[in-house]
Amino acid sequence: MDWKIIEKFTTQFIKNYVHQSGFENVVIGVSGGLDSAVVATLCVKALGAEHVHGLLLPFRTSSPESMEHGRLVCESLKISYDVIDISPMVYNYFTRVPALPDKPLQIPNKCARERMSVLYDFSVRKNALVAGTSNKSEYLIGYCTQYGDGAAAFEPIADLYKTQVFDFARYLGVPEIIINKKPSADLWEGQTDEGEIGVTYKEMDEILNLWFGHGYSLNEVVEKGHARETVNKIINRFNASKFKREMPPIAMMPSMDNWA
Amino acid sequence: MDWKIIEKFTTQFIKNYVHQSGFENVVIGVSGGLDSAVVATLCVKALGAEHVHGLLLPFRTSSPESMEHGRLVCESLKISYDVIDISPMVYNYFTRVPALPDKPLQIPNKCARERMSVLYDFSVRKNALVAGTSNKSEYLIGYCTQYGDGAAAFEPIADLYKTQVFDFARYLGVPEIIINKKPSADLWEGQTDEGEIGVTYKEMDEILNLWFGHGYSLNEVVEKGHARETVNKIINRFNASKFKREMPPIAMMPSMDNWA
Repeated sequence: MDWKIIEKFTTQFIKNYVHQSGFENVVIGVSGGLDSAVVATLCVKALGAEHVHGLLLPFRTSSPESMEHGRLVCESLKISYDVIDISPMVYNYFTRVPALPDKPLQIPNKCARERMSVLYDFSVRKNALVAGTSNKSEYLIGYCTQYGDGAAAFEPIADLYKTQVFDFARYLGVPEIIINKKPSADLWEGQTDEGEIGVTYKEMDEILNLWFGHGYSLNEVVEKGHARETVNKIINRFNASKFKREMPPIAMMPSMDNWA
Repeated sequence: MDWKIIEKFTTQFIKNYVHQSGFENVVIGVSGGLDSAVVATLCVKALGAEHVHGLLLPFRTSSPESMEHGRLVCESLKISYDVIDISPMVYNYFTRVPALPDKPLQIPNKCARERMSVLYDFSVRKNALVAGTSNKSEYLIGYCTQYGDGAAAFEPIADLYKTQVFDFARYLGVPEIIINKKPSADLWEGQTDEGEIGVTYKEMDEILNLWFGHGYSLNEVVEKGHARETVNKIINRFNASKFKREMPPIAMMPSMDNWA
């Protein structure tokens, strides 16, 4: 990949979209992870540091390291930021309507949507658009909360696989400590994306690139050296998450000719 | 309009979409207003009352009448429901980060997104999809909160103008008291949609049907007897709300050929 071209391309996209929408500013949720570090960097290059505002939105179970890395991103980019603990809002709800013991994603999903809600509230305060931080790997397998971290005004890196985002981050000079740690949604201690999804990003991206990107069949991807079970899992996740990549379907009325 | 056909059409749409998605149940936010009363009725006809769960989600400033009408809808349809006051979660946030005096929609938008978040949490509890209640008038002019009341799994009446929803409601036997009151987002006492948008639904729907539905130009719509200012306002709202009807744009990379 020619990262210089990709940098030019993504920053122009940000600049054009933000300005054509009548805005000058963006707000971005800075998690301390790789994707938001890359998007924050691109936004600063596209709009200038004074037009980018970071939000660090920790939850009670978030790792202190995430917060530390989030601050490092904002401070190294010289952008303003706020820290808002989302625990009180989230716990206020679950205190009154307890989470079910067999539904481990209820609390993480509520957190993701609370973060979205805070980001959109800050978009009003800062007269800004909300920058999205989805990458292509999570986008294609639906590894995100609908109307949560999947919600934004525009998506600058959603056509870059996670393995590509690593290389892009290195090119952009994102702090090494953020590049070198294992990707994690930080839902519990020791969690990693790869552990939870059950396949490495390297293999997932190879499979997605062959199957989705180049149109190889399941069998052909298997022939190229991937376990059938793994390929199946990826394809199933892609199919099952279609609804996250589309607007809700509308019942289109059979005929409006006799209207009025 | 042949409401019998529209009823058959919308209930089949609900049944097919819910079942094909692997679900049997829906949850729906019941506001006490017309649209959610109609969609709740259609869901009961499509899936059976035992598969529909209502959520009444009042805020501190909501009118007691809204709650009363919401209960009336659930009880007349014989569906189970929960009442959850969203004020503690919303105020918890604004106590720490006060709303700005010149931004009157901050609190209503936070409320709309909190309701979405609660509805999606209940979709997990009830193993259900979230039914959408958008109508075509508000959908086309963007009279909704993005990722708030505009967020759902499917939209059964988003191709029916508000004036049509009134007629459909009468056909479906929605309680008269709900049909006869003025549509309101219930943001403050005495608020009406028509007062806030600045045009009656009757005129808005005529304009939208001519311009959007039948492709007449601005001038032609004016010639048909509508004030230029009003037609312009509607067209401007349509154009300015395009982003609410689309997925966030993705920066598509120029070439991935040299990937891997």
